Amino acid sequence: MSFETTYSVEWGDCDEAGIVFYPNYFYWLDCTWQRWLRAKGLSQRELKKRFGAATPLMDVGCNFTAPVTYDDELTVAATISEWKEKRFLVSYTLSVGGRPTARGHELRAWAVVGEGGRLKSAVIDPAFRRLFD
Amino acid sequence: MSFETTYSVEWGDCDEAGIVFYPNYFYWLDCTWQRWLRAKGLSQRELKKRFGAATPLMDVGCNFTAPVTYDDELTVAATISEWKEKRFLVSYTLSVGGRPTARGHELRAWAVVGEGGRLKSAVIDPAFRRLFD
Amino acid sequence: MSFETTYSVEWGDCDEAGIVFYPNYFYWLDCTWQRWLRAKGLSQRELKKRFGAATPLMDVGCNFTAPVTYDDELTVAATISEWKEKRFLVSYTLSVGGRPTARGHELRAWAVVGEGGRLKSAVIDPAFRRLFD
Amino acid sequence: MSFETTYSVEWGDCDEAGIVFYPNYFYWLDCTWQRWLRAKGLSQRELKKRFGAATPLMDVGCNFTAPVTYDDELTVAATISEWKEKRFLVSYTLSVGGRPTARGHELRAWAVVGEGGRLKSAVIDPAFRRLFD
Repeated sequence: MSFETTYSVEWGDCDEAGIVFYPNYFYWLDCTWQRWLRAKGLSQRELKKRFGAATPLMDVGCNFTAPVTYDDELTVAATISEWKEKRFLVSYTLSVGGRPTARGHELRAWAVVGEGGRLKSAVIDPAFRRLFD
Repeated sequence: MSFETTYSVEWGDCDEAGIVFYPNYFYWLDCTWQRWLRAKGLSQRELKKRFGAATPLMDVGCNFTAPVTYDDELTVAATISEWKEKRFLVSYTLSVGGRPTARGHELRAWAVVGEGGRLKSAVIDPAFRRLFD
Repeated sequence: MSFETTYSVEWGDCDEAGIVFYPNYFYWLDCTWQRWLRAKGLSQRELKKRFGAATPLMDVGCNFTAPVTYDDELTVAATISEWKEKRFLVSYTLSVGGRPTARGHELRAWAVVGEGGRLKSAVIDPAFRRLFD
Repeated sequence: MSFETTYSVEWGDCDEAGIVFYPNYFYWLDCTWQRWLRAKGLSQRELKKRFGAATPLMDVGCNFTAPVTYDDELTVAATISEWKEKRFLVSYTLSVGGRPTARGHELRAWAVVGEGGRLKSAVIDPAFRRLFD
């Protein structure tokens, strides 16, 4: 199962070289994940309420193949490419007008709120996983 | 004449208090201006090519009446509320689901590229102004 | 009483025109306020703990007189220029190497946590005000 | 040879969970690289002037081991851990008060300005590499 969304690349997203300042790509990866959650009737707050859980990041990365500039409409496609017991991998493909520009990933943990409000790694709730199957 | 556009308020736009970190409002004001330009067939680059000009900021401000959070869809309506010889005032109304949340403004100068690439204040090109009348 | 701090303007803070993308100025205004709080032994969390209060924004603005670029060291000087019963005005002067580049302000309310976690405007705690006299 | 610099984590860098919104880590990685260039008498503009070159990103990543919050002073240590013919790897270690919080990397290409202003991958200038040996 996958999810796709678009962003209009804005003037303020680009640096003096006239291309996207790269940390912004991760803003879009995170936004895509949040939008996907929302499309499932979830959100960070709902996730906490319904599952007592959050999905903190363990590892992220991005590989760039073509520059993107502020006249572009950026499409981000997400898919969960791997489920482990306590973590899952979200893979992203970024493109502009069908032309691939980057690939990224977010390795997210399933974490429940333990004593004192601290997050604690836990086995992924099957009900959560089913939403994405 | 006015222009309206929307933004989905994202997780990363909010601070620990769970509401929009206010500098982001100005990102959206600027984006709205850029989108309006684009709707007119312009852009920062096109503006430079066609008019040899830019619209640098002289004064900006925002007045907040209600908090906005990451579950919200923010609508920004823009209007040019005042034309002076060498500058113009863009006024913004921000709202969520019809409920006003803030009002903002950008006072922009008309500036042409002078010697050595430096921007120089100039009388607004009538052809530019006509686009917004 | 006043407070001064500096920021190094980074590559990613500038837009394609090679000057600071203006929403970042407000990031620095807010940071200056937070650093000032910290210099007083406070912070957003400490403020909440000690006073049960926050200082939400009511109105902000900035007036630009000279561009700033990513080779610059930006100095921001803050002063509380007005105390009202329930709000106070923080005024900022921005400069690079002694040359003024902008002036800004933040009108902040004194707000206490009311029922259901909602912020409610209140009379400024004298102990808070004394810290800045 | 390595380089170290610090950042104060600001209120606006954190999300509703009260920890750093992760794209900001990449802002700091990039800033660290820019500061290192500056410490070598270089900068993006100087690099272009002296070498006719830029150092665009090919791949970036970050691995998180502990959360960072806005009361923290973040130290970023950089080292060039690998030199290839046309690219080099900058490795980053992030820590707060001596406690490691993340590790990151930026794989940067050496690119010279070709026809029409386009960047073109090229063999790293030995004079550039010597600066970091």
